[in-house]
Amino acid sequence: VNEIVGRLRAVVVEGDVQTTPEILAAHRRDRWVLSELHDLEGRLTALPVAVVEPGSTAEVARVLEVCREFATPVVPYGGGSGVCGGIAPAEGSVVLSTARLQGLVRLEEQDLCASFRAGTNGLEAERRVGEAGLTLGHWPQSIELSTVGGWVATRASGQFSTGYGSIEDLVLGLEVVLADGSVLRLPPHARAATGPDLRQLFLGCEGTLGIVTEVTLSLRRSAAARAGVACHFPGFAEGLDAVRSLLAAGYSPPVVRLYDPAESQRHFPEHCPDARAMLLLIHEGPARLVEAATEASIALCDEMGGTRADSAAVDVWLEHRNRVPGFREFLERGIIVDTIEVTCPWSSAAELYERVTRSLQQVEGILLATAHSSHQYRSGTGLYFTFAARPANPADMAETYRECWRRALDSTLALGGAISHHHGIGRVRREALHEGLGDAGVALLRTLKQALDPMGLLNPGVLIPDDPGSA
Amino acid sequence: VNEIVGRLRAVVVEGDVQTTPEILAAHRRDRWVLSELHDLEGRLTALPVAVVEPGSTAEVARVLEVCREFATPVVPYGGGSGVCGGIAPAEGSVVLSTARLQGLVRLEEQDLCASFRAGTNGLEAERRVGEAGLTLGHWPQSIELSTVGGWVATRASGQFSTGYGSIEDLVLGLEVVLADGSVLRLPPHARAATGPDLRQLFLGCEGTLGIVTEVTLSLRRSAAARAGVACHFPGFAEGLDAVRSLLAAGYSPPVVRLYDPAESQRHFPEHCPDARAMLLLIHEGPARLVEAATEASIALCDEMGGTRADSAAVDVWLEHRNRVPGFREFLERGIIVDTIEVTCPWSSAAELYERVTRSLQQVEGILLATAHSSHQYRSGTGLYFTFAARPANPADMAETYRECWRRALDSTLALGGAISHHHGIGRVRREALHEGLGDAGVALLRTLKQALDPMGLLNPGVLIPDDPGSA
Repeated sequence: VNEIVGRLRAVVVEGDVQTTPEILAAHRRDRWVLSELHDLEGRLTALPVAVVEPGSTAEVARVLEVCREFATPVVPYGGGSGVCGGIAPAEGSVVLSTARLQGLVRLEEQDLCASFRAGTNGLEAERRVGEAGLTLGHWPQSIELSTVGGWVATRASGQFSTGYGSIEDLVLGLEVVLADGSVLRLPPHARAATGPDLRQLFLGCEGTLGIVTEVTLSLRRSAAARAGVACHFPGFAEGLDAVRSLLAAGYSPPVVRLYDPAESQRHFPEHCPDARAMLLLIHEGPARLVEAATEASIALCDEMGGTRADSAAVDVWLEHRNRVPGFREFLERGIIVDTIEVTCPWSSAAELYERVTRSLQQVEGILLATAHSSHQYRSGTGLYFTFAARPANPADMAETYRECWRRALDSTLALGGAISHHHGIGRVRREALHEGLGDAGVALLRTLKQALDPMGLLNPGVLIPDDPGSA
Repeated sequence: VNEIVGRLRAVVVEGDVQTTPEILAAHRRDRWVLSELHDLEGRLTALPVAVVEPGSTAEVARVLEVCREFATPVVPYGGGSGVCGGIAPAEGSVVLSTARLQGLVRLEEQDLCASFRAGTNGLEAERRVGEAGLTLGHWPQSIELSTVGGWVATRASGQFSTGYGSIEDLVLGLEVVLADGSVLRLPPHARAATGPDLRQLFLGCEGTLGIVTEVTLSLRRSAAARAGVACHFPGFAEGLDAVRSLLAAGYSPPVVRLYDPAESQRHFPEHCPDARAMLLLIHEGPARLVEAATEASIALCDEMGGTRADSAAVDVWLEHRNRVPGFREFLERGIIVDTIEVTCPWSSAAELYERVTRSLQQVEGILLATAHSSHQYRSGTGLYFTFAARPANPADMAETYRECWRRALDSTLALGGAISHHHGIGRVRREALHEGLGDAGVALLRTLKQALDPMGLLNPGVLIPDDPGSA
């Protein structure tokens, strides 16, 4: 142990190598509720051997070389805001934190792009480009906690994705350190047909195929105009139909959020009548386009059976949109809470909503099972389920939790959905990936892993299901 | 030879195995002008051992198994419309044609997607969805010649890409047969965060990593309204600036085409004054958005120094847009002609245009060196150069050709551009890929190739530069 720490200290000079128990303990997990539960129960006892904070890409490469030499697993750590168990270093692992890879590297106003070191905080990145009247157009709920590198590694999606796209639509260039210590710099081309898009290997790799060290993001000018629309529908299914029609008609406002009746009451008690499904739209862009799109979307909602509501509801949402709820206070009261986001085709969206909420409501101790839809595509939608359960025996919280997840993912798979829209796989969805990608898909993922990280040192235990054939 | 043909005949029952000399000869090459030149000179003598036309995905898998057994290279063949030398089977290879993998498999009107077998002709695919009032929104110049599978394998881009995206934005699902004969079915999810996007390995792989057998494409409703705008600028640089401003202001009309003065005269002699650069825009979508965007783009062009022209120029373009010029008549007159499309950031676009056209004009025997810009992004543009040269000695055509390519790609690399926008690498750009992706990028591509096709049987000689270290 001392030997690897010594070697790491020798190669990390611009950055730091931390070994104090508090810092090691603070890097044992992300915000996965099951890790939080285990933490609360005092069961998170494994500690990494060191939290390494390289100060440059070259130092990241050297850290990986040292870890390879010692055959020591490396767990990359960005903002620690993941909710799927992507960070759970085994005893003696090295945590590679991007905390010292900070800041804007360059901003090209004419080319509308900016490069950031991977550890740059999301809100900070947005602030930096905002000074030039520009925006990333990427606004995950966790923007205050997450990092630019984490967005790439987890294949993040933001609240404005319907109009502006998800992180894969915004990444132009990437710098990645591979397991063998080589540095890959993929230049920020607007588009290229130079073989497969190699950036895509790392968008969503969850640290298993390489360590992202720098990201060049596409920018847009801050919108000249913005307009909010709120209206409510008799039920969630009717609202989904309206959203589908809006997208099919050729509109894609940046924000399109449809809440089921329970969530509508929870979030907008003053703006939505009981038992109705609230829809919020935000149009952004040049003033005339915003005006035309706003009027058209109001007319379409009207046509689809919606009732116009006070657009102050949109302001309520804008104000609270970055609030990331803590799980701890619930856990201490014996309540386990989580969210499950999936994608599904329009043709099965209403049924999936019904099936999952109904199925969750049958779980022993369930307190609530609700949903909203917040990322829209011509072909389908993202459904975001929230559940809370208080089993009679608090010791059953983990099992109740797993049961809820199983039900939600089984229904999703049965109806042709994708098991994650934007939170990723981590540990919580790992076993479902076989059905999600098919055996050939998982085999291909294993082939990539074997090719890029033959020693299996990069974030082991995450994303890729264990191979029952090996070991 | 007879042995492998016999084995192929035994496994291909729904489809066919062709061995007549005419059919073998017809599959020796794509439309790369250098192959056409060699053909004309009688130098294309190598023949594949068979042209296999599997009738199903299962038969594709069996063909790959037989080829693996005989260690025989397999060259996939779609429409044969590529222009980069992606098809040039070595003597004794097997050509795997998708000619029998035909037609629409399913059309989901609610989910706005359609699945096609890989060999479906592009225009036929568009016609089939057109019957339902839908469109692919993908319209490459070669749409009458190319196939849906070829679009994926070459990372194609269509004439409406500025508004509707390129093929990677339109592909939802893929079925691919891997070198080991396993069948990968990646379901048509609107979006997923289930690890890296595995579809991307095959978008642009040019047949080197797998054989695409079925493609699910996103659809859109046929636009409710369409409006064309034509105007001209004092020069190409001024036009580029206007296009950049249009994109930066938040507009992305499906079609945005800017021609340099020479091409403006060549294509629009009646609509563009001499020495001016013609810009064509087509707005599509809901009527009110089209109206607002059209007016705004006219105002912006005005502001940027443009002069409005008769929008009949747009109709001229619409009428002729699928004309794919033949090289043969030129070659027979000792003239070598080709196009070179690259991508570059806005900040270097005008300079790249100047450098390349000026540099080409210095090549001995050059007849013309012109360009247009036809695919736009917030961060940059696609420049499409056309050159024609008649060297004093017709035997120098190939060398003159290579010199023109070298000049264009060297300038592109020097100014931070991508060496291909949408034609791909094939053989013509292969050696430039080292500079295009960097050594680490090429190494990663080789790692992928080794992992997915360890025997190197899938379309060898294409895309990936030879490894001087091996062999």
